[in-house]
Amino acid sequence: MAAFNVAVIGATGLVGSEVVRRLEGRGFPVKNLVPMASKKSSGTLVEFRGEGVQVVQASEDGLRGMDLVFLCVGQEEAVRYGYAAKEAGALVIDKSNAFRMDPEVPLVVPEVNPKAAFHHKGIVASPNCSTIQLVVAIKPLYDAVGIKRLIVSTYQSVSGTGKDAVTELRDQTEALLKGEEYRPSAYPYRIAFNLIPHIDAFEDTGYTKEEMKLVRETRKILEDPGLPISATAVRVPVFVGHSEAVTVDTQKECDVEEARRLWSEAPGVVLVDAPEALLYPMPVDCEGRDEVFVGRVRRDISCERGLTFWVVADNLRKGAATNAVQIAELVLLGEVSR
Amino acid sequence: MAAFNVAVIGATGLVGSEVVRRLEGRGFPVKNLVPMASKKSSGTLVEFRGEGVQVVQASEDGLRGMDLVFLCVGQEEAVRYGYAAKEAGALVIDKSNAFRMDPEVPLVVPEVNPKAAFHHKGIVASPNCSTIQLVVAIKPLYDAVGIKRLIVSTYQSVSGTGKDAVTELRDQTEALLKGEEYRPSAYPYRIAFNLIPHIDAFEDTGYTKEEMKLVRETRKILEDPGLPISATAVRVPVFVGHSEAVTVDTQKECDVEEARRLWSEAPGVVLVDAPEALLYPMPVDCEGRDEVFVGRVRRDISCERGLTFWVVADNLRKGAATNAVQIAELVLLGEVSR
Repeated sequence: MAAFNVAVIGATGLVGSEVVRRLEGRGFPVKNLVPMASKKSSGTLVEFRGEGVQVVQASEDGLRGMDLVFLCVGQEEAVRYGYAAKEAGALVIDKSNAFRMDPEVPLVVPEVNPKAAFHHKGIVASPNCSTIQLVVAIKPLYDAVGIKRLIVSTYQSVSGTGKDAVTELRDQTEALLKGEEYRPSAYPYRIAFNLIPHIDAFEDTGYTKEEMKLVRETRKILEDPGLPISATAVRVPVFVGHSEAVTVDTQKECDVEEARRLWSEAPGVVLVDAPEALLYPMPVDCEGRDEVFVGRVRRDISCERGLTFWVVADNLRKGAATNAVQIAELVLLGEVSR
Repeated sequence: MAAFNVAVIGATGLVGSEVVRRLEGRGFPVKNLVPMASKKSSGTLVEFRGEGVQVVQASEDGLRGMDLVFLCVGQEEAVRYGYAAKEAGALVIDKSNAFRMDPEVPLVVPEVNPKAAFHHKGIVASPNCSTIQLVVAIKPLYDAVGIKRLIVSTYQSVSGTGKDAVTELRDQTEALLKGEEYRPSAYPYRIAFNLIPHIDAFEDTGYTKEEMKLVRETRKILEDPGLPISATAVRVPVFVGHSEAVTVDTQKECDVEEARRLWSEAPGVVLVDAPEALLYPMPVDCEGRDEVFVGRVRRDISCERGLTFWVVADNLRKGAATNAVQIAELVLLGEVSR
């Protein structure tokens, strides 16, 4: 089997280090791994297949000879290294927001729109964390009964923000329990034992960019530019795992049994829905898992035809690293698997 | 001015002790305060107007001579003491679920349906915490532009469960930060750094009783038995303050400016909605406040006419104690104030 020279830019961040672990964990055929990061982190070691691999400073020159480049950095750097890696002939998989809405760049969730990936011109974008778990959950309904309208409320963990936010939640919680002060820095307000109904910048409509990512990316992935979607995105004091309360108005009737059957057969979905046994998805149970968990399924009582349910996924795994590695598997190996 | 003999049953619980503080704080004309509780708590002191008042064991006999009785206990005790207090000639205000859906008992939020209170036959019920803040927030829209459909996702704090749950969140969080085990008891699962999409028992439809309280109580308060409502109720690791993401389809067009104007004039509502200045309601800011806070107001983009917004209130204050004391002010003093 072919093996690939793989660079991970941003390899010391939460998502980048998870990409390295997923490459190993999923047995991706890596010939050489080149973990890259900022000057500050270069020289540190990243563990891969039982060995410490030295992190090198990210540079455009360093991308020569790479077959596959994962971009786990911010938008600005993603643009710079993305074009450089593409020029160097690599397949580029970008986790940032830089290319997602570019009509030339496919936005891919392998269980949902695998074919789109093969139209790439060097770059494939991976959607935002909250979009990925939403589209994996709704795709079986979309195909079987059609979706007329989608309303989503999110409950997003701090690891979606990055390492600093994880540290902030831990240290701030500890300080508060001791009755000490702690000045927020990763967020504008305290996150410990609080909620912040504000993720990313506000647009003129009053929606945040995070909420509009859910709207725009879902429409692009489903190739349904007019699909009515509304979202409210909220940060919650949870370390890992994003949750979503979803209401779907469907075109055709779909009862709970039918929906459960669709989900139990859907790729990448685990149905956890036995309320009588107190079984439903929760962030702590989904941490470290690659799938999207669906539960609390019920016939929505506020519309003629519709369902309401609860979706949880590990935002660092399926919401980020796992999806990126799956895209590589799909494009370079022709595989679709969880 | 007349003054009243007032009993608070459950005076040592989170809600009961807050009722005592609200009676004092709002200057309610109390002649004698009789705090009652279980045998276990009797003999302890409750502070009222700078003095320690001894808690007595709750008993039906002890209700004789009372003008006003607050029931801050579970459903079973509420029924027992509710009928006894009514027989004794007192006005009974019940915080439990015991009488809320009884067609003989008005279910009252003073800013929303004050007239209903005057049809009481001795007992007035105060709604569930999450219903109170919802109806205060939607009433101005309901009156001005009509509501066709309502979708609510809740983010409910642990103080809604009671003292044990508050202790559990604190102790469990502390234990987890130290890497120690902590067995859940107030909840079926860990609540620290987690979410539990399950409050109260499940009904056959898959909705929980907590979710259906939002549906049924809102319909009763608005006297609109067919109003389409759907809710998802989720417990979050926050000590005090319930939050709700609300989507409302309106009969008539209502833009954001009009909605803000309605809320800025609405009784009991504080509009906190300046996204450009990062101002929106959060639980920590609403703790210890009597009002309902509305923000993140936007024209809903998934329907023809509608709004999406965010509502926060202190579940022990407006969601419980404040509303109960306001009902007493309304019925006995003829006042409606925050």
